[in-house]
Amino acid sequence: MTTPTLDFWFDFASTYSYPAAMRVQALASAVGVKVNFRPFLLGPIFKAQGWTTSPFNLFPAKGRNMWRDLERICAEVSLPPMRRPEPFPQNSILAARVALVGLAQPWGEDFCRAVFSAQFTDGQRIDDPETMGAILSKLDVAPAAVLAAAVSNDNKARLRVQTEEAQKLGLFGAPSFTTPDAELFWGNDRLEQALAWAKRSG
Amino acid sequence: MTTPTLDFWFDFASTYSYPAAMRVQALASAVGVKVNFRPFLLGPIFKAQGWTTSPFNLFPAKGRNMWRDLERICAEVSLPPMRRPEPFPQNSILAARVALVGLAQPWGEDFCRAVFSAQFTDGQRIDDPETMGAILSKLDVAPAAVLAAAVSNDNKARLRVQTEEAQKLGLFGAPSFTTPDAELFWGNDRLEQALAWAKRSG
Repeated sequence: MTTPTLDFWFDFASTYSYPAAMRVQALASAVGVKVNFRPFLLGPIFKAQGWTTSPFNLFPAKGRNMWRDLERICAEVSLPPMRRPEPFPQNSILAARVALVGLAQPWGEDFCRAVFSAQFTDGQRIDDPETMGAILSKLDVAPAAVLAAAVSNDNKARLRVQTEEAQKLGLFGAPSFTTPDAELFWGNDRLEQALAWAKRSG
Repeated sequence: MTTPTLDFWFDFASTYSYPAAMRVQALASAVGVKVNFRPFLLGPIFKAQGWTTSPFNLFPAKGRNMWRDLERICAEVSLPPMRRPEPFPQNSILAARVALVGLAQPWGEDFCRAVFSAQFTDGQRIDDPETMGAILSKLDVAPAAVLAAAVSNDNKARLRVQTEEAQKLGLFGAPSFTTPDAELFWGNDRLEQALAWAKRSG
């Protein structure tokens, strides 16, 4: 029997990706599912739908509800109060590139959680190489080599390929979860259901 | 102490309103919350956002996921397999008008559930007065007087006012739930949380 696995697709700028990223590893471990962190970019996918920014900006009533909904969710799962980064959404391309470097090494998932906390707990800009460097240093990773690897042509191409794969899998928002049998779940509120599916079909 | 209450806002054409409508009364009774069924029309609200049809039609990847997601949800909560009505979305104005008449009488909530089942289990058109009449007859309600009351100017105005109130409350989708302290919850997947809120703040 192989280990059940679940792909966790997220964009660092995505608000609902934050609680999902903070919760997924503990919940998956508890039920014996292996999680693959897969950062991608929502921008090209939104653009293909004709959106030039986050739907939470395009549709103000939806946006207001989203911030309030996340306040309630964070309280429920004992995350610190959510802060709205300025500007919103943040440009997440640099963080995603660094994450791809890290996820091939032991510090990748910790880096992802730290980026989400920096942005949504501390209100920091995640498009700033200094923010990235400070997070890496705290994880005892020397920033210079990693930041250089992050912006190499190979790594840039890797993120493009990952985003194209997301689109081919039918992703249209984040977070999303996919299983080896091609089941797609969308939203932080589908995390538990996705894990149960992965467990059953794994 | 007053009875805690929750307003349940729905559009008959809304797919996620279906499982919410089938679940809400039993869940609310179990925790001692009084539910008010409040049909409204999403059309004018979508129009104000620049949408001419359901976002599930406008954004095909989102639509595909919605139908699959609802298959999974119906299986999970033991509802019959979901059928896609033709056309989708259905024009829900007649059903909403009849529901408003019924909700002032004892048969209103049963009527609402029967309309959702006719549409999403049996694939019937809910814009057809004959469908409405058949549902009413099964509930031992004589159709003619009710259908006449439904399309009276007073009742038409009542539905417009209800839709305007929804918009003022910040509703942007269905189902939604609102509490007397003006908390707004959006989506079938927020029903349990909304009930818990109503219970605490009631």
